[in-house]
Amino acid sequence: MMKIIDGGICAAKGFYASGVHCGVRKNRTKRDIALIYSEKTASAAAVYTTNLVKGAPLTVTKNNIADGKAQAVICNSGNANTCNANGIEIAQKTCELLAAELKIPATDVVVASTGVIGQPLSIEPIEKGIPMLIKELSKDGGEAAAEGIMTTDTVKKEIAVEFTVGGKTCRIGGIAKGSGMIHPNMATMLVFITTDAAISPAMLKKALSTDIADTFNMVSVDGDTSTNDMVTVLANGMAGNDEITAEGEDFDAFMKALNTVTVYLCRMIAGDGEGATKLLECRVSGADDIKTAKTVAKSVICSSLLKAAMFGADANWGRVLCAIGYSGAAVDVNAVDVSFKSAKGEIAVCKNGAGVDFSEEKAKEILLEKEIEILVSLGNGDCSATAWGCDLTYDYVKINGDYRT
Amino acid sequence: MMKIIDGGICAAKGFYASGVHCGVRKNRTKRDIALIYSEKTASAAAVYTTNLVKGAPLTVTKNNIADGKAQAVICNSGNANTCNANGIEIAQKTCELLAAELKIPATDVVVASTGVIGQPLSIEPIEKGIPMLIKELSKDGGEAAAEGIMTTDTVKKEIAVEFTVGGKTCRIGGIAKGSGMIHPNMATMLVFITTDAAISPAMLKKALSTDIADTFNMVSVDGDTSTNDMVTVLANGMAGNDEITAEGEDFDAFMKALNTVTVYLCRMIAGDGEGATKLLECRVSGADDIKTAKTVAKSVICSSLLKAAMFGADANWGRVLCAIGYSGAAVDVNAVDVSFKSAKGEIAVCKNGAGVDFSEEKAKEILLEKEIEILVSLGNGDCSATAWGCDLTYDYVKINGDYRT
Repeated sequence: MMKIIDGGICAAKGFYASGVHCGVRKNRTKRDIALIYSEKTASAAAVYTTNLVKGAPLTVTKNNIADGKAQAVICNSGNANTCNANGIEIAQKTCELLAAELKIPATDVVVASTGVIGQPLSIEPIEKGIPMLIKELSKDGGEAAAEGIMTTDTVKKEIAVEFTVGGKTCRIGGIAKGSGMIHPNMATMLVFITTDAAISPAMLKKALSTDIADTFNMVSVDGDTSTNDMVTVLANGMAGNDEITAEGEDFDAFMKALNTVTVYLCRMIAGDGEGATKLLECRVSGADDIKTAKTVAKSVICSSLLKAAMFGADANWGRVLCAIGYSGAAVDVNAVDVSFKSAKGEIAVCKNGAGVDFSEEKAKEILLEKEIEILVSLGNGDCSATAWGCDLTYDYVKINGDYRT
Repeated sequence: MMKIIDGGICAAKGFYASGVHCGVRKNRTKRDIALIYSEKTASAAAVYTTNLVKGAPLTVTKNNIADGKAQAVICNSGNANTCNANGIEIAQKTCELLAAELKIPATDVVVASTGVIGQPLSIEPIEKGIPMLIKELSKDGGEAAAEGIMTTDTVKKEIAVEFTVGGKTCRIGGIAKGSGMIHPNMATMLVFITTDAAISPAMLKKALSTDIADTFNMVSVDGDTSTNDMVTVLANGMAGNDEITAEGEDFDAFMKALNTVTVYLCRMIAGDGEGATKLLECRVSGADDIKTAKTVAKSVICSSLLKAAMFGADANWGRVLCAIGYSGAAVDVNAVDVSFKSAKGEIAVCKNGAGVDFSEEKAKEILLEKEIEILVSLGNGDCSATAWGCDLTYDYVKINGDYRT
């Protein structure tokens, strides 16, 4: 029993949030810092980018939640605090300042940053922002927090679901910021998830690591793996269920709810990729193993040529075949079928690795929709995978041609 | 002693070429088929794409030059003859028709195609084109052939050099078509090279395989490895040098001349990438080994974000660091230096993995040039590598948003 409900990170009991403008960004109309606070200390788990160049906040956060516990999350946008000589110092100081005001240990703070790499970040705006954030903390602050972490995102990304664990009603909610430099590898963009379910740090970590392999690690906007990717979950146990400490029915219910939240955020992130006009979902079936299915799905979703074709609503399925062929997966290209699907219907364009006659008119109608499924059957085994991405547009070039200056 | 001379594939003795419109393309003003012919049977070597989806002509060519010999090259543009049910038959028939007219064995023909994948290709226009091609064959036909193989290329790509082997003057020339779906892996785009140097098939193969590892395999336009990539060299021995049958001074002279031709064509291909306004050259030094240097150089040149920044003449060096970090190479990111260089000068933007103060004005002036060098020092060993690419522009999106229809 699970349903999607209104709200985001404040949907779960005991979580409060806020987002304000503190001055990291010059534009005063844009919130640039966000806070999430749990009444009680929560189990905490996180996954991080595999980029060797890592934002300073990741190092500090990793250290802080090594004990599996956290109580607050602070995140600024507008500056990634990456490749800065004093980055660690700034991230550490942020935790200390916040902790002092909240009267919690500095090591119970998750700190994150997103924005331009290699620009000096000063502590002053953050120091000024912290009391403002705390003053604004409320059950209604989720949207403001979602806005506070946005960079070139055009819409805020939040979701919440309600589900049952051991007879107790639990909630899980999340916010995300995505847009550019998105090609996760092990971890991903910034995502903050909160839940009032009781779950041990070890099982929370297991749930998150298992889930991201099929969700955030299957999203690509532009093939660039960010330096600041991080997904964190805080679980404060205030729903009152018996703590989940092992696999079983309760864990499954939690996993299912978590997956609903993460898949939703994946689709939001992909569909709001920089400059995107379309969400692309590549579903690969008939693979011998999951790895093959994932490799093929990601290769298709990452092809610049296919992405540009989708922008033009052009059923250029040869580019799908091409991307399958260079994916590195061992597939029998003569057994591949490809269809395009959207709210307007489905059309088969390739059977057994060769083109079939199809109506260009119908294909155009299907591809003019905002959400496109690219269905690939490898014609071999029983394994499948899904990857999400977006089209490549003029606006991607525009946004990234002068993002920094 | 080597010098660049006028001309292309007809610069070497005994080679003739032509290019005409035969009707594979509807546009009558665009040459769509090219022929290269050698008076004498030549040593032949080729490398091919590693994409599992391969154009039918590649299979036929591979078979034809298994004996290390060829005498003619025929290539159409406008249709890749890939993912077609009768592709092999068409490619085979093309060889037979040409061979019959030229009175050479069909197995001495190299056949190639480039264009849209998965569109039926009929033999009729090719059958009609062959006598026209033969009629037009001449020492002045190199440019027409270079045009005949172009797809979205905006300029024809040819070069020739003159050098000495064992006291004899030799020439080597080449033409290429590049533009899109360019991210070579083992082999690359279409490149046809001719030489009158005498060299055994085995040594020709060795020369080509060695050379492409540092040249065509270090070019990327859009990260998509084509289904039809092929580089071939024909060496007819008419320069009269003692046949090169082993390594040594003569082989070195040949390699050097070949490398001059291939590097020139690489730069032409990268600089004329689809929609490109700039040629990007990433030179990585200070690596522990060649593989690391190559991995880093290619990762930088492939970053969509950096490519877009270069289009905007934005010195966003954080994207260079980011691409180094996710390249997969084991580098000490705190030892990395980055500079941008062009005809307008050189500017250091990052030292030891962190930003340095630099004049944005000067950086802009440097990056507004047409040829940009991205200099990366890894601060470790003595190995270096160079990769070539181009910026990501509105026109790339435009060209690929409706290439097919």
